[in-house]
Amino acid sequence: MSRPITLGIDLGGTGIKFGLVDYQGRLLRTRKISTPSKGDPRRVIDLIVTETRSLLGSLQSKKIKGIGVGTAGDVDPATGSVRISPNLNWHNVPLKRLLRRRLNYPITVENDANAAAWAAYVVEAKRQVANLLCVTVGTGVGGGLIIDGKLYRGTSGSAAEIGHLTLYPEGLPCPCGNQGCLERYVGARAMIQEAQRAIQAGKSSLIARLVQNDLSKITPLILQEAARRHDKLALQLWNQVGERLGIGLASLINVFNPEWIVLAGGLSRAGSLLVDPVRRTIMKRSFPSAAAAAKLIISKLNQDLGIVGAGLIAH
Amino acid sequence: MSRPITLGIDLGGTGIKFGLVDYQGRLLRTRKISTPSKGDPRRVIDLIVTETRSLLGSLQSKKIKGIGVGTAGDVDPATGSVRISPNLNWHNVPLKRLLRRRLNYPITVENDANAAAWAAYVVEAKRQVANLLCVTVGTGVGGGLIIDGKLYRGTSGSAAEIGHLTLYPEGLPCPCGNQGCLERYVGARAMIQEAQRAIQAGKSSLIARLVQNDLSKITPLILQEAARRHDKLALQLWNQVGERLGIGLASLINVFNPEWIVLAGGLSRAGSLLVDPVRRTIMKRSFPSAAAAAKLIISKLNQDLGIVGAGLIAH
Repeated sequence: MSRPITLGIDLGGTGIKFGLVDYQGRLLRTRKISTPSKGDPRRVIDLIVTETRSLLGSLQSKKIKGIGVGTAGDVDPATGSVRISPNLNWHNVPLKRLLRRRLNYPITVENDANAAAWAAYVVEAKRQVANLLCVTVGTGVGGGLIIDGKLYRGTSGSAAEIGHLTLYPEGLPCPCGNQGCLERYVGARAMIQEAQRAIQAGKSSLIARLVQNDLSKITPLILQEAARRHDKLALQLWNQVGERLGIGLASLINVFNPEWIVLAGGLSRAGSLLVDPVRRTIMKRSFPSAAAAAKLIISKLNQDLGIVGAGLIAH
Repeated sequence: MSRPITLGIDLGGTGIKFGLVDYQGRLLRTRKISTPSKGDPRRVIDLIVTETRSLLGSLQSKKIKGIGVGTAGDVDPATGSVRISPNLNWHNVPLKRLLRRRLNYPITVENDANAAAWAAYVVEAKRQVANLLCVTVGTGVGGGLIIDGKLYRGTSGSAAEIGHLTLYPEGLPCPCGNQGCLERYVGARAMIQEAQRAIQAGKSSLIARLVQNDLSKITPLILQEAARRHDKLALQLWNQVGERLGIGLASLINVFNPEWIVLAGGLSRAGSLLVDPVRRTIMKRSFPSAAAAAKLIISKLNQDLGIVGAGLIAH
C-alpha cells in the first residue's frame, strides 16, 4: 500500500503553484498557472478548483489526505480566512470555507511564509533544530518562525512579519501604516528602485547597458550579472541590501537566538553577494554567543518551499 | 504539613534581594543587601552564602525545596554559569557550581529578566495567556519571553535581549558592540543624560530647580514630579522615551504577536506618562490585528518580580 500524499498550493500575487507532496516533503508532480489580474477571489477560486480536479482526477482519491494552501497575506488560523492580502488585493476572503464547499477534501490554509518555514524545518533541517527563522527575500520580505519544533503563529496568527520590523524609524512610509519597515529597504522592489534612481541621477553603470537603457527591465538577475562583472553600482547595491538585512537579522538574533536562519526567495539566489554582507553585519551587531549559535543557510528548495510547506501542513 | 517553599535571590549590580517564595509566587519574607562595589565574585558569593544561611537557619530545612538565582547578564542555562555580566563586571563566573559547593540545596541560575517574565506569567497572568513579553525598563532595558506557556531561552540561552534591538542603525555606540541599541535611548540612564544635556545647553526647566541645580541628582522620580507639574522639558522627555520604546515594541508585536506585554522596572512607575505614548506609537506602527491582540499591562509586583521569579524557577 502506498503512503498518503497531499496537494500543496502556493497562492501568490503573480502565480499559483500546485504540487503533490509526500509526508517527507518530496514533490511528486507540479503545475503552475498565473494568478488572474486584480486577484478577483471568485476567479481565483474557480481556477484553483478546476486545476485541483484535473490534477487529482487521475489519482485514486483515497490516496489524497488533504489540501494545504499557503497564501500571501494575513490569515486567521482559526477560520482559514484571509484577513488581508495586499499582493492579492483581498480583504476578508473566507478561503477555506469557499474551497471546502467545492472540493471534498480537508482544507488547511496558512500564511505562505509560515508554510515555507515549515518546509525548511521538515525538509532542510530534518526536524533536527529546535528554533528556526525562515526569511523569504523576494519582492518583499516574509518570515516564518519555528519554536520548539512547532510553527509559531502568535496570538492572532500574524507572528513573524519580519518585513515590518522597523529599520529606520523616520524612514519611508510603508503601506502597512508604519514608517521605515525593513521591506521598504530590502527585497527586489527596493533594490530595483535604488538602481533606477542612481542611474537616473547620472550614475554610470553596466546595469543600464545590460537592459539597453530600459530601466523598467532591471531584475535581481541583472543586478547579479552586473555585480559578477564588477560593476561598482551593482556591488554597492548588494552590499547595502545585505547590510540592511543584516541589521534586521542581528536584532532578531538578539531577541530569538535561533539555531538556523534559512534564507529563501529570489534575492537569496545571489549567494555570497547577499550573504557575505549579511554575515558581516550580524557578527558586528549581535551578541557574540547568539551570533555564534545562529547558522545562516541558503535554502536548497527555495522556489518550492511554498508548495512543499503547503503540502506538509496538510499531512 | 505545610507546602514547600524556595529561596529566590535577585542579584543585580547595586543590590542583592532575598525572598522566601511559595509555589504560587507569594513572598513570605524578604531581605536586601548592597552588592559589593566592583562585584568581586568571591565577595558576592560569600555574602550570598552568609545571608542564605542566616535566612534559612531559622527554618526547618526540609521545607526548602531549592534556591533560585536571577542574575543580570548572559547566563549559560546548561551550566548555570554567568558568561558575561556588564552590571556585575563578571566574565565566566560558574555561579551555580560555586554556590552549590557551599549551600546544600538544589541551585537554579537564570537571567534576571527571564526570571521576571516567569513571575509575570505565573503570578500576574495566572498562566492564562499563551504568549507573554515582559519588558523591564529600569537603568537599561531587559526582556523575557514566554511562548506556549514556557520560558523561551533560545538556542544558547540569550534570547529576549530586547534592549539590544537596533533602534537607530547609525546611532550611539553600545557597549555590546552594536550601534543604536534600544537601551541607549530608553531607560533611566538615557533619560537622565538627555535631561542633563538639555539643561546644560540652556533649556530652562523645573527639573533644575527640583535638584537645586545639581544635575547629578536627576532621577526618574524627579522627571515624573516635573512632568506632573507640567514642565515642558520633562513632558517632552517622557513622550520621547515612550515613543522610542513604542517603536521597539511595535517591531516585536509584528514579530511575536504576543497576548500580553508586561511593563516593569523603575520607569514603568510613571504610568500614563510612559504608557500613553507607547500605546499611541504601537497603534500607529504595528499591524492592526497584532496591535489589537496585544494587551499592555503595568506589573503590580514590579520590584519584586525578580525575587519572585527566581523563587518560582526553583519550584
